[in-house]
Formats: sequence, C-alpha cells, structure tokens
Amino acid sequence: MRKVIFDTDPGVDDAMALAFLTRRPELELIGVTTVLGNADIETVTRNALFLKDRLGFEAPVAQGSGVTLLGKHGSHAKHVHGQNALGDVPIPDLIHSRPDGRRGHRMMIDLIRANPGEVTIIAVGRMTNLARALDKDAEIARLVQGVVVMGGAFGTSGHTGNVSPVAEANIAGDPEAADAVFTAHWPVTIVGLDVTQEVVLDVALLERLRDHGGEQGRFLYEVSRSYLGFHQKTRKLDGVFAHDSLAVAYAVDPSLFTTRQGPVRVICGGLASGQTIQKMERAPYPSTAWDPHPAQSVCIRVDVPRVLELFTGSFLQ
Amino acid sequence: MRKVIFDTDPGVDDAMALAFLTRRPELELIGVTTVLGNADIETVTRNALFLKDRLGFEAPVAQGSGVTLLGKHGSHAKHVHGQNALGDVPIPDLIHSRPDGRRGHRMMIDLIRANPGEVTIIAVGRMTNLARALDKDAEIARLVQGVVVMGGAFGTSGHTGNVSPVAEANIAGDPEAADAVFTAHWPVTIVGLDVTQEVVLDVALLERLRDHGGEQGRFLYEVSRSYLGFHQKTRKLDGVFAHDSLAVAYAVDPSLFTTRQGPVRVICGGLASGQTIQKMERAPYPSTAWDPHPAQSVCIRVDVPRVLELFTGSFLQ
Repeated sequence: MRKVIFDTDPGVDDAMALAFLTRRPELELIGVTTVLGNADIETVTRNALFLKDRLGFEAPVAQGSGVTLLGKHGSHAKHVHGQNALGDVPIPDLIHSRPDGRRGHRMMIDLIRANPGEVTIIAVGRMTNLARALDKDAEIARLVQGVVVMGGAFGTSGHTGNVSPVAEANIAGDPEAADAVFTAHWPVTIVGLDVTQEVVLDVALLERLRDHGGEQGRFLYEVSRSYLGFHQKTRKLDGVFAHDSLAVAYAVDPSLFTTRQGPVRVICGGLASGQTIQKMERAPYPSTAWDPHPAQSVCIRVDVPRVLELFTGSFLQ
Repeated sequence: MRKVIFDTDPGVDDAMALAFLTRRPELELIGVTTVLGNADIETVTRNALFLKDRLGFEAPVAQGSGVTLLGKHGSHAKHVHGQNALGDVPIPDLIHSRPDGRRGHRMMIDLIRANPGEVTIIAVGRMTNLARALDKDAEIARLVQGVVVMGGAFGTSGHTGNVSPVAEANIAGDPEAADAVFTAHWPVTIVGLDVTQEVVLDVALLERLRDHGGEQGRFLYEVSRSYLGFHQKTRKLDGVFAHDSLAVAYAVDPSLFTTRQGPVRVICGGLASGQTIQKMERAPYPSTAWDPHPAQSVCIRVDVPRVLELFTGSFLQ
C-alpha cells in the first residue's frame, strides 16, 4: 500500500479523483493539502473539507497557499467548475470536518519526514505548495517515493494547451513553482493533457456510475453536470476529460501509461508562459537550460480501455 | 508561371533547393536575396553568386542583411554545412557573376512593386530581409501573391526543434523578424520541420542523381557529402533532410501538403526563444496575443512519395 498526499484545488475533476483515490486499496490517503486554482483558497479548502465529510476519509486536510510563488491571486475558473467550484452541487453550511492547524506545505513536510521513502505526492492543482515545501526543506526531495503531477501539455497526440496554445491551466497558474518542482532532484511523473484529454468519461459511463455506483457513483454524476455542459459547449464533447483521475490511475498502475524521459522546464512569462518543454534524451543539440537538470517522466500514451475499466470498476457495485 | 524571389543563406540544402527551383517550369526565378545564417553574409553571398554561375540562372543576386533585426551576428553552422557553407565543394576564386548593387530588402521591394500580385517569396533562411522589406514598405504585403517559409517547428508528427527542444534554426536565428513576418497581413505558408524532417533524400536517391541527373545531379551529390556525414552522425540517418527543397515543392504543387490555419506567433527570448506557436481556429480559450493576427497556413503533413518523385524527376535525364 502506497502512502499518498493529495495536493488539490477541488474542482470537479479533483473531487472525482479524490473519490477514486479513496476507493483504491493500493493507495492510503495520509493527507490532503489545498491550493488556489479552480477557486480561491477559502473555497477550495471548504470544498476539500466537504469532500472529507462526503467521502468519509480520515486523512487531515490542511489549507495551503492562497497566492502563487510570485504573490499573485490569479484567475479562477467559474465557467468550468461552477460558482462553488464543485459543479454547483449543494454544499451544506455546516461542514463537520475541520482543517488541520498547519499550513499545507508544512503538513506536507511533516508527513514526508514521518514516513521516509514511503510517500507519493499526487499533485493535481498548481505546484505552489510543493515548491514552498521544497524551499523550506530541500531534503524532502530525497525522502519521497515519487511525485505524480496532473499538469502540462507536451503536444504529443496533438494535445496542446487549454488556456493558451501551449499552456495547461495548473502549470500556467504558477509557472515558477512548476519549474522548481520539475527541476528538483526527486522523481516526477507528469500526467498532462497528452494523456488526460485522451480519456473521456462519457455520458453513458457517468449514467452507469449514477445507477450502479452506489452513493459515490451518484455523487460523481451530480458533481459532473455543469462540467459536462462546459465540455459540450466548448469541445463538442459528450463527456468530460478525466484529467486529475489520471494522476491517481498512474499511482495505482504505471503500466497503464507510456512515458518518455528527459529534463523538463517551464516557460515563465511571455507568450509561451506556462508551457512545459521536455528535452528528449539523445537530442542532437546541446541545451544548457535543460542538460544540467534531472530527467523526469512524461506520459505520452495511455491505455484508454484499461484506465476506464480501472476507474469505473472502482465504483460499480 | 509563378514569379519567385528566393531568399536564402546557402547552405547545402539551400543550394539543392535553388537547383530544384531552376529546373521547374512552373516557377520563374526573378531574384535571389541573401541573408546571414548558415554562414556570415559575405560567405553566403559569394555562395549564391557561385550558384548563379554553376546553375546558370539569369536572375540578379542581391546581398541582404548581415545582422539580425536586433543587430546580432549570431552563430553559424560550420559543423552542418562545412567550412565554406557549401559542403566544402571546391569554389573557384574567380566567380563570374556580380552582385546586384541594391541591398537585398530593397531589391525585394523593387521586384514586388514591378510585378504587383505576381510574386511569391520563397524564404529559406532567417526572416531578416523580409522583415526589413515590410518595415520599409508595408504596402508590399498586399502586393505579393504569397510567402512560403522554410522554418519553424510545431511538434506535429513528433518533430520539435533542431537547435533547442522547441526551436528551429532559421526562426531561432532572428525570432523578432519571424514574428513580424508571420503577423503581417500577407498569406504565409510555413513549411517547418513537421514536414521537412519527414522527407529524407537517402543515399540511394543521391547516387541516382549522381549517375542519372546530369551535371546538376552530380553537383547535388557532391554538395551533399559532408551534410550526409552530419545526418549520419547526429541523427543515425542514412540520408539528408530535404528541408529547403520542400518550400520549393510547396510553391510548385501545394496539393503535396496538408495545412492547418491559424495565427502564428514566435517566442522572442527566454528558454523557448524561436519557438513557432500557432493558435488553431476554434481553440476553446481566448488568446489576445494571437487572436488579432491573420491566420496563416502551417504544413502538418506531406505526401512523401510524390514529393520525392517531383524532386528527383526534376533532375533525372
């Protein structure tokens, strides 16, 4: 069983991924840290605590960074995730769960130090908490088992950016943090749009979850309503991208993915801000901006039928 | 018959492309302008005049820009194109042809104004001369028939940069000029690495040109020797990329290529400097940096057998 810290900005696909994670016997959720992104930090922390109530997990939830590394609040995505960032499902005023007293990056450090060599961070929001944790305690890099990031776009499979022609939202939201995380000496696997936009949870699948997935399956269906509308409107897609759930799927079973190796840098500022660029091993030119940094893994292909079976099978009863 | 200005920095593949161009009855070469790139401006101009002697064309050769828009001399590519930038084939001290007295961008403007609506610019070096011509006389944009550029890399077909993980040499050599050319209101077709690295002139083809391609076929063979060595060493490729000849092929027969439409910007400075980025039409996000600019055409696929037949058939006797 792999110990997991889930760093998140719920968010509809974050909620689905967290539900998926809590259903998997291979993963033990030991902490949730929140970060600004799909909404402001108060909203996403409230949502994470609501999800703790609703999904019934025990792991502590700590509020993380409300601003980027450069101190920006950034823009949110109400047109994607709804006014309450959880697809406008009703959220009760009274939430039972309370936040952990520590700041997100501090709890992250504490959990890693308490479980040396055993923790996988699954990060599905901006990289701010991870960058702050590295900054405060660089040694954690060698103490984690691995980092799995949902973010970025490398243009393979024809999938380029979703907030600019080259940038994906999580990375564009704090490019400096992402560059720090990807160039650190810990093993990072990047699950970007190249694979997450290959996996569509379609209307039939969502209805199957509603009808045969118990209470959590019904919740996934409800939370996906306005998110589905966004995909139908902007993508002419009769389903939703799996996005964050793919990072959980990688942690469960890396064999679902094909990866390629090489240092990854993030463009900070300018027209390409937020772009993730990997230098492939054996490229026929020197690149001093990449060459000194550790090779990371980028997912370039996914076994779509198997990953859909893993996801759906986790809920069906 | 289409009137063509060939803007070039010969260069092995430039020489091959120019030979190809002069063999095509569909194209009438009316001028050659040189630009720094594969070597300094004196060397590439000398090479262009040598090619005029050797290929026997009548069009004037004018020396263009020896520095980029920002005044840089930039780096050259002796390891690719040889010490004399023409694959180290012997170049006589005495060259018969003389350069036109005008500067490259000035001759370009004059030729366009003398043939309104009739000129296609085929540009296979840095975009400096074209940007200078636009800067001096913006009206030429509506007077040319079209601009065909060999340069850039859009990551389709898996072909990314050749001087950095995202940048191609012609564009990286003067990104400000390329951005000016691609955002101008004239119809640009970009023939980048996405297609030029799909077309390999292999050893058997080069030997066929030597044995059955007459004097010009023998010249192409000779000029390709050190270029072939570079490809064998760095790419493990038993042939050379067609590169510049593909821009000529597009001018001869656009149906050899599949294009996609959308504004193109060039990253100027930073890690991604020289990257070409197209915003596809109907992208589901606004991008103020792309949206105001005219849609240009980017080649994303090429009919390899047909283009090889067109190229080879132009020489075989």
